[in-house]
Amino acid sequence: MPIYNAPLADMKFILNDVFNAEQFWQANENLAHVDAATAEAILEEMAKFAQNVTHPLNRTGDEEGATYSNGNVTTPAGFKAAFKQYAEGGWIGLAADEEWGGQGMPKMLTVLADEMLFATNPSFMLYPLLSVGAGMALNSYASQEQKETYLPKIYSGEWSGTMCLTEPHAGTDLGIIKTKAERNEDGTYNITGTKIFITGGDHDLAENIIHLVLAKTPDAPAGSRGISLFIVPKFMVNEDGSVGERNAAGPGSIEHKMGIKASATCVMNFDGAKGYLVGKENEGLAAMFVMMNYERLSMGIQGLGASEFAYQNAAQYATDRIQGRSVTGIKSPNKPADSILVHGDVRRMLLNARANNEASRAFAVYVGQQLDITKFSTDPEAVKTANDRVALLTPIAKAFLTDTAFDAVIDAQMVFGGHGYIREWGMEQCVRDLRIAQIYEGTNGVQSQDLIGRKTIKCNGTFIEEYIQEIRDFANGLDADLNFIKDATLDAATEVESVTQYILEAARENPEFSNAAAVDYLHAVGLLSFAYMFARIANAAKAKEGEFYQNKLSLALYFVQRILPELALRITKVKAGSEVVMNFSEDYFTNQA
Amino acid sequence: MPIYNAPLADMKFILNDVFNAEQFWQANENLAHVDAATAEAILEEMAKFAQNVTHPLNRTGDEEGATYSNGNVTTPAGFKAAFKQYAEGGWIGLAADEEWGGQGMPKMLTVLADEMLFATNPSFMLYPLLSVGAGMALNSYASQEQKETYLPKIYSGEWSGTMCLTEPHAGTDLGIIKTKAERNEDGTYNITGTKIFITGGDHDLAENIIHLVLAKTPDAPAGSRGISLFIVPKFMVNEDGSVGERNAAGPGSIEHKMGIKASATCVMNFDGAKGYLVGKENEGLAAMFVMMNYERLSMGIQGLGASEFAYQNAAQYATDRIQGRSVTGIKSPNKPADSILVHGDVRRMLLNARANNEASRAFAVYVGQQLDITKFSTDPEAVKTANDRVALLTPIAKAFLTDTAFDAVIDAQMVFGGHGYIREWGMEQCVRDLRIAQIYEGTNGVQSQDLIGRKTIKCNGTFIEEYIQEIRDFANGLDADLNFIKDATLDAATEVESVTQYILEAARENPEFSNAAAVDYLHAVGLLSFAYMFARIANAAKAKEGEFYQNKLSLALYFVQRILPELALRITKVKAGSEVVMNFSEDYFTNQA
Repeated sequence: MPIYNAPLADMKFILNDVFNAEQFWQANENLAHVDAATAEAILEEMAKFAQNVTHPLNRTGDEEGATYSNGNVTTPAGFKAAFKQYAEGGWIGLAADEEWGGQGMPKMLTVLADEMLFATNPSFMLYPLLSVGAGMALNSYASQEQKETYLPKIYSGEWSGTMCLTEPHAGTDLGIIKTKAERNEDGTYNITGTKIFITGGDHDLAENIIHLVLAKTPDAPAGSRGISLFIVPKFMVNEDGSVGERNAAGPGSIEHKMGIKASATCVMNFDGAKGYLVGKENEGLAAMFVMMNYERLSMGIQGLGASEFAYQNAAQYATDRIQGRSVTGIKSPNKPADSILVHGDVRRMLLNARANNEASRAFAVYVGQQLDITKFSTDPEAVKTANDRVALLTPIAKAFLTDTAFDAVIDAQMVFGGHGYIREWGMEQCVRDLRIAQIYEGTNGVQSQDLIGRKTIKCNGTFIEEYIQEIRDFANGLDADLNFIKDATLDAATEVESVTQYILEAARENPEFSNAAAVDYLHAVGLLSFAYMFARIANAAKAKEGEFYQNKLSLALYFVQRILPELALRITKVKAGSEVVMNFSEDYFTNQA
Repeated sequence: MPIYNAPLADMKFILNDVFNAEQFWQANENLAHVDAATAEAILEEMAKFAQNVTHPLNRTGDEEGATYSNGNVTTPAGFKAAFKQYAEGGWIGLAADEEWGGQGMPKMLTVLADEMLFATNPSFMLYPLLSVGAGMALNSYASQEQKETYLPKIYSGEWSGTMCLTEPHAGTDLGIIKTKAERNEDGTYNITGTKIFITGGDHDLAENIIHLVLAKTPDAPAGSRGISLFIVPKFMVNEDGSVGERNAAGPGSIEHKMGIKASATCVMNFDGAKGYLVGKENEGLAAMFVMMNYERLSMGIQGLGASEFAYQNAAQYATDRIQGRSVTGIKSPNKPADSILVHGDVRRMLLNARANNEASRAFAVYVGQQLDITKFSTDPEAVKTANDRVALLTPIAKAFLTDTAFDAVIDAQMVFGGHGYIREWGMEQCVRDLRIAQIYEGTNGVQSQDLIGRKTIKCNGTFIEEYIQEIRDFANGLDADLNFIKDATLDAATEVESVTQYILEAARENPEFSNAAAVDYLHAVGLLSFAYMFARIANAAKAKEGEFYQNKLSLALYFVQRILPELALRITKVKAGSEVVMNFSEDYFTNQA
């Protein structure tokens, strides 16, 4: 019953008109194999796959769920064939190096392909997503031999990957993990421990699963400086690269969750499983963060995909549903009532979602471009700047794009009235499936701590100051007929700059200040980022003629008038400080009397 | 696994200290049978029932769900016995007139009893809730004979009640319902049509179900002025009051929903079922609104209950979960990490929920008191004022209390990190179960239209002006040491007064203005109402000594500094007007290109 039409027109507009992607690619010798025609062809192919393969499996996957029985996980009907088709289409290695069988496509393109999969089937998307993340970590830190053994099989989809971090008592605080790694004489390790919340920890989609496991050697330093990373295959790999005997690593059960039910979330038991060190002992966290940072941007894309899916369905429902009459006179005299699109409040909800989609999509492409610069640019200065930008914007991409998407999906569900609560319409599944994106890969609260702490206070505001400078430079270059977005963006930049200074000073005086202010600060920077994206969108649209482009300007105006004002509220909350939060005893929270 | 401890201390504080309930009851001859000791005993008994009976059935009810088979609905294991115990305890008639077997308790007390049921088992609560709503509609509009036939059986729980309004094509717009009522010669009617979303439309808890059905007679005027209300029993009632043969009214199926899965939401088929007119033909909507207004306040209580439940569980989890260290130095040196309560961001989420709970609870009691005045007062002037207040505040109670509760429950779920997404912890069920409260009994969007249209513009702002005057009078009487809440409340009153004037003027110029502004206006009035409640709470707490009362003042300060600032944002959004929303063609919403 739910619909999905890949938003190709907006994707092409963003790539071609907003970011001049072809020009950017062609100017870089490492990306000169990509042109607009290639990019559009890839997006069109992915649109077909998403619409025809993963979309029809979304509801059935939710109803059936992944199941666990006798130590094995089975995915819902259709997932195996879809994964095979996805793998054979070369999609898993879309962004991977050609050396390992990948297609070497830039991130600013692949984020858009990812969006379509997340929109149509987030549970499905998580399986290849974890493979790609594992591939990235291995590509950065593994030995040449390890890369040769694992990467081609992962990118071909013959094998898949996982990341095994969380333990029952250790989530955000990985420094206290207990999983042990004991070195054998042959240089391998025996891995023993229990991991939880392992996405794709077991399934029937691939012939082997390559677990990347964080563990501690017996003599490791305490805390996060004593964590090592290991490859632990589900099946041992023979000399010739074929799959050998079963390793002592497998699922103990799967979790019963609010959503993403077709994605197997496993409790994993490692009982002296054979493991291979990646990189050096005690340097595992850095390798895992390669993977984690990739996943974090992806979670933002999950938000975008869900918001687009929800918007499309709500817009169609609102168009079809007739109920009540327009206050300015009957619009459909031949029908017993007008479409609910005549009601401003229904439009408000739809426009909230649509503005979120278009700004989020532009922002994802923008962050993708920064990642492409870090990977492909030959200019060390450009790479450094882009690295700083990625560091700053990764928590925004993860947390802001999922928070705003959740609001958008909730609005879209409300457009359906009671039908939004009924399973067959698909909206309630969309809410349930999306909710995890705010939680996993570091909760949005943790992302906010990362932004305000390591990415802002630690560098004394340098990253955000550089970003604001870029935004100001762009906004100042806008023509006078875009003053509505120019002024709004410049004002937002000044507000964020000012509150950043406020935070830097307050944090010097009071070590508790930043923790309480973090989420509101992240939303402030997120709103500024969306203003910047709408400034870029408006600038590109202004150069064109036609309703499509005029609507982009109208949506930018909607953003300025009805969404961006939240920035002032966020800043007020930041400035409220931490005393009003810390001013209660610990007992207060559980004690009613 | 989830916990629930009835918040009796706060309930008693609100009744006794904030609202001086005993004094209010004793001053009214119709309520003189109620004193503080009776009220507390009732609350304590309900606390036991909620903690020991409905709470343990909440998770199992969700897992099992209500089921439909061969024209009959079965409730989950344990529901039948719990309903019997509930009925035998006299709870269904707690607020009903003694004439019909009720206990005649005031609403300001019963809202608190309702909160405990909604907190522990919203699915269960919906069964008696609909009975009570049906009883109220009958009590106001039915004939003496009808009352005698139905009310005692409904309040004893032998029979239950429903409200049958919605049809597949007619939800908010009841004027276009198609269900037909054809008059028979004996004065009965034959009712034919299909109703959807009928809560408790069928079940196995009572021996008969009394459906209140909206339908149109053949010659009825078009629109909502041609709607009549009928009693349609599941089983015919014999002369002696016993249950007779089956009527042609029954469930065709039940809906599969996001939550409240133990509550049977039925598609109801009426195939020439025998019906009895309630009141006069074409005057059915007024009778149904008696029921509807009752349900609307109840939905607010559903929000409060869910928010309290979520808060308690999140507070306990945060206390128990150790992860990371306090920035001001290690707090639990004997443990590998500190409780996550050391983190300001975790406290922020918990305090958002707790502030919501205490303000919502006070507001529910306040609205309950206004309802009690309308019902029990002998002073016509007081009744008129209270009626106006109830009219104004019903949409706030329904929509604001469920919107803020949803935010609170989402915050509480986030405190759990990944565990919040896992079913066994109960938080995800709480989110799913609560979500419907924003949707049913008129979506929160529809509530907002009611507030801004019929309750504000239509009376030229009289209702809100009178309410603001009451708030001002109260705030002006506060002592100087409460200036933090006094000033905040007075400022909020001025802001709301000013934006109301703005709306009245804008609506005269532009008929589309109010629809687009409605939700933000409702939230503005809601925030002012919470400020007023915290002013009353602070005033009561100030007169006492001890940590319990000091914490009330600290929470009021938290509200002023971190929640009330949203008022300015809401007003900015109201003033953004409708043009920026209506400035798109209808095609725009479904057309991407």
